[in-house]
Amino acid sequence: MFKIFTQKDGLANVKGFYCDGVNVGMKTEPKEDGDVAFIRSETVCEVSSVFTTNNFAAAPIKHYQRYPKDFKTDFVLINSKNANAMTGKNGIEDIDEIFKSLNLKTTNPIMSSTGVIGYRLKKELIKSAFDKFDYEAKNSYKTARSIMTTDSFEKELAFKVELEDGKSFNIAAICKGAGMINPAMATMLCFVITDAAIPKSDMDELLTIATKQSFNTISVDGDTSTNDTLMLLANSQSKAYNKEAFEMVLNRLTKELAMMILKDGEGSNKVVAFEVTGAKDDKQAQTASMALSNSLLVKTALFGEDPNWGRIASTIGASGIICDEDSLVIKYDDLLIYSKHKPSLDEETEQKAFKIMKKEQYKISCDLGISDGKFISYGCDLSYDYVKINADYRT
Amino acid sequence: MFKIFTQKDGLANVKGFYCDGVNVGMKTEPKEDGDVAFIRSETVCEVSSVFTTNNFAAAPIKHYQRYPKDFKTDFVLINSKNANAMTGKNGIEDIDEIFKSLNLKTTNPIMSSTGVIGYRLKKELIKSAFDKFDYEAKNSYKTARSIMTTDSFEKELAFKVELEDGKSFNIAAICKGAGMINPAMATMLCFVITDAAIPKSDMDELLTIATKQSFNTISVDGDTSTNDTLMLLANSQSKAYNKEAFEMVLNRLTKELAMMILKDGEGSNKVVAFEVTGAKDDKQAQTASMALSNSLLVKTALFGEDPNWGRIASTIGASGIICDEDSLVIKYDDLLIYSKHKPSLDEETEQKAFKIMKKEQYKISCDLGISDGKFISYGCDLSYDYVKINADYRT
Repeated sequence: MFKIFTQKDGLANVKGFYCDGVNVGMKTEPKEDGDVAFIRSETVCEVSSVFTTNNFAAAPIKHYQRYPKDFKTDFVLINSKNANAMTGKNGIEDIDEIFKSLNLKTTNPIMSSTGVIGYRLKKELIKSAFDKFDYEAKNSYKTARSIMTTDSFEKELAFKVELEDGKSFNIAAICKGAGMINPAMATMLCFVITDAAIPKSDMDELLTIATKQSFNTISVDGDTSTNDTLMLLANSQSKAYNKEAFEMVLNRLTKELAMMILKDGEGSNKVVAFEVTGAKDDKQAQTASMALSNSLLVKTALFGEDPNWGRIASTIGASGIICDEDSLVIKYDDLLIYSKHKPSLDEETEQKAFKIMKKEQYKISCDLGISDGKFISYGCDLSYDYVKINADYRT
Repeated sequence: MFKIFTQKDGLANVKGFYCDGVNVGMKTEPKEDGDVAFIRSETVCEVSSVFTTNNFAAAPIKHYQRYPKDFKTDFVLINSKNANAMTGKNGIEDIDEIFKSLNLKTTNPIMSSTGVIGYRLKKELIKSAFDKFDYEAKNSYKTARSIMTTDSFEKELAFKVELEDGKSFNIAAICKGAGMINPAMATMLCFVITDAAIPKSDMDELLTIATKQSFNTISVDGDTSTNDTLMLLANSQSKAYNKEAFEMVLNRLTKELAMMILKDGEGSNKVVAFEVTGAKDDKQAQTASMALSNSLLVKTALFGEDPNWGRIASTIGASGIICDEDSLVIKYDDLLIYSKHKPSLDEETEQKAFKIMKKEQYKISCDLGISDGKFISYGCDLSYDYVKINADYRT
């Protein structure tokens, strides 16, 4: 048995970790937010990471991958406004050069970047953060704000886990992400820190499981960025650990952060779960579910609050999976919308459907009636604001 | 040798064919447009068709497929406002019932529908068109207007081909389509008629080739509908035929219609060609090219006229094909935007890029530098109006 408690102040709860964020002049709006941040541990950490599947992984990811397998680290430097992607060898050398100026003794420092693709880092500006940082601070809020790009709110979360033997450990995370979220690995940066005494092999195993059920189930616009990073740092300072408890709390933490990202989907107002059941297998269910959460026509219908279930059916039909209109059943929440024997909406059902679609969160489920494959993904609506944000976003 | 001439008045040019469109009260805006139309030939035609790959093909497609292989026909009935899709057996029976009331002797009549999914046809309304039709009319414009849904303009095109021996034949088409255009077969209805004496086997062969280089290269929003239909009807009345000439004119006809559809992409203002060269093979080039024309982030950048080439690179990197940032070259028209040795835009190049992006048509080319695979697809921008049209569209 174990108990899980929510905590305030994000990263500040975890033993031996420090963090801070400052503005060096790259982020001009809002200018009270930082653009460079660090997370460090007073003792070295095991580290486990999941990176983007994009073929053009950014320079900081390549820099990380140059370290030997199972390297330990005690320092992560993060900047927003510039992704340091498509910058080739120069991009990696820039990171080395920045770390040469670091006024703190570190072990295998890591860098992580988010922002616009294709520009060299402003090294001198980033280095100027080193004199501004308070290396003894536990300023989770400022750190979380510093890594934001088009996010409309900071994302921090922390839990304390009390084990049966009276021992306890803490786990906390910050993350950023609002656009470009795709089930092929959400486009985001997420840094999870813990003082649990978790072995490296468990970190790798549990992080993979957590990713699958959290960031890999959400979709904002079907694009996958060059910089996606989910990183778990563990310094063991609590001396406490229980695998089952850690798995549960890591899953909960990542799932809640994924939902925060989706809720902050650029210009989005709604979070909709697309549950596909009865598919030939889980893979086919996933294909159909992701086709729904990525479809422009579905997303605009969610925005328009129009129970146009034909678009749901058409998207499933176009997804290339095995399906049959005679066995398909579509529901909005618990409301039956389509089945073979009920091919069009009567007035009363339509009114009920309108009500469901006005909610901020609801579920659209499609049972294919073929076999028992199932998958849930989460999507959001596509609004005028999505177009506005993305037509304008660059600097 | 042969000569190809453009003709006015679309379908009216083709010998032995008649067409008309009337409003029976389903389309209320603009109410001067029809909602039911026919195309007929005074002698029976060979017919060849390419249909949607959507698993939930609409009732009219299933009705067509019940006819024996190589059947001949002389009559096509077309309605807008209702797709007669997801209507099961009832949908097919409705078509049979409608044709029972037809006040004209026909052979193997075909129906084709476009509009909202999931509603039974209003049979009595559609039947009321039969008394209104002028079966001896050659009213191409009214016919073209009648099949429109969200289209902002009618699409008709006609050519005359003069052969060396002094003989000539005519080919003409109308089509509809504005949203839901995807390279897996553009979402549209297109009816091509000809008086050429083309054998059935050539019709099948040349229609497949024509589809591949026209409707299958355009993308508005990556969705594939339940009703996509490209139909070629030939009544041989000109007694003239030349395969090479027919292939050339059919390719030109379908390509021009595809560009009209793209230009009419819902709320779109620009047509952009995405040329991918240097891929491992043509298939990988197609994957990358289609990823570009379907990407929301690319489409919004086109709308914002922002030369944010990082989104181009990122989309290629995420498309799952073999690529390398060191061998990638990106150009906008002839302007070099990215290569390994030129990783970011200088002020002068950026100003030139801005100018190109203000044009209504331009090309973005990506050379992957791997091998010699190549593909061009065509896409459009994503504007506020796309969201508006699709949030509102249903009835």
